[in-house]
Amino acid sequence: MLSSDWTRDNCAVGNTLSVIGERWTLLVLREAFLGVRRFDQLQRNTGMARNILSDRLNTLVAHEILKRELYEERPPRYEYRLTEQGLDLYPVLLTIMDWGARHLGGEPVTLQHKNCGAVAMPHLACPECGEKVAAREMRAVRDEALPKPA
Amino acid sequence: MLSSDWTRDNCAVGNTLSVIGERWTLLVLREAFLGVRRFDQLQRNTGMARNILSDRLNTLVAHEILKRELYEERPPRYEYRLTEQGLDLYPVLLTIMDWGARHLGGEPVTLQHKNCGAVAMPHLACPECGEKVAAREMRAVRDEALPKPA
Repeated sequence: MLSSDWTRDNCAVGNTLSVIGERWTLLVLREAFLGVRRFDQLQRNTGMARNILSDRLNTLVAHEILKRELYEERPPRYEYRLTEQGLDLYPVLLTIMDWGARHLGGEPVTLQHKNCGAVAMPHLACPECGEKVAAREMRAVRDEALPKPA
Repeated sequence: MLSSDWTRDNCAVGNTLSVIGERWTLLVLREAFLGVRRFDQLQRNTGMARNILSDRLNTLVAHEILKRELYEERPPRYEYRLTEQGLDLYPVLLTIMDWGARHLGGEPVTLQHKNCGAVAMPHLACPECGEKVAAREMRAVRDEALPKPA
């Protein structure tokens, strides 16, 4: 659980939502993680109106989640690629997909961990003990309540 | 990365977004994970208009993410609590918060894993080898391309 002692006006959830918390924006990101980079294919796959797609792409570029790169000079044509900060949204997209597949019955994607070869859906784990964690196993703490390192 | 061979019309990301992919809805969930259960406090903390809050709460109850429970009989008053399916959205909220704190500078929440006592932000890990995983370390596979178990 989160605690109630943080500042809601400076909330990391709220800040993130102001950038990606919009259905069309997340659908553009879904396509980006699928390797789709070009306007026309993005438009076809999402069914978005061209002006809305253009607007959302501009927002994602402005927030450095996507970068716009020239891939053809005559006529000039651009494609959209995930930045490092954009690639770092992978856990957000994956946890959304995982929840949807389990609770709403969406199409599951089979994922493989390249490093060890396991075919498995990554889960949220404690970086110290490695255990899978859920809401009830976490608590938010005030910094001053933590034991000081010796 | 995800693969391009799944059905976009039956996409788990899209299905989830149709339920929670809306800024106000996610702010209500943020409050729920903070332990806020009553209409007036939800309204104060989010700054939402009462009719919008009421509408989003009804949506979350209809999708069995929140449940409405009587806590006072005269006059009848209700509170909103996370269901199991709602509690299971914790990884979604946490990965959003983590990304925001690292990239947008939102207020970080200090979290402690109750089971082992570690003070750490949970991360996405491979359930087999336990390694932290990122977008580039995952690949989507077609089921028929997987080696058959011996």
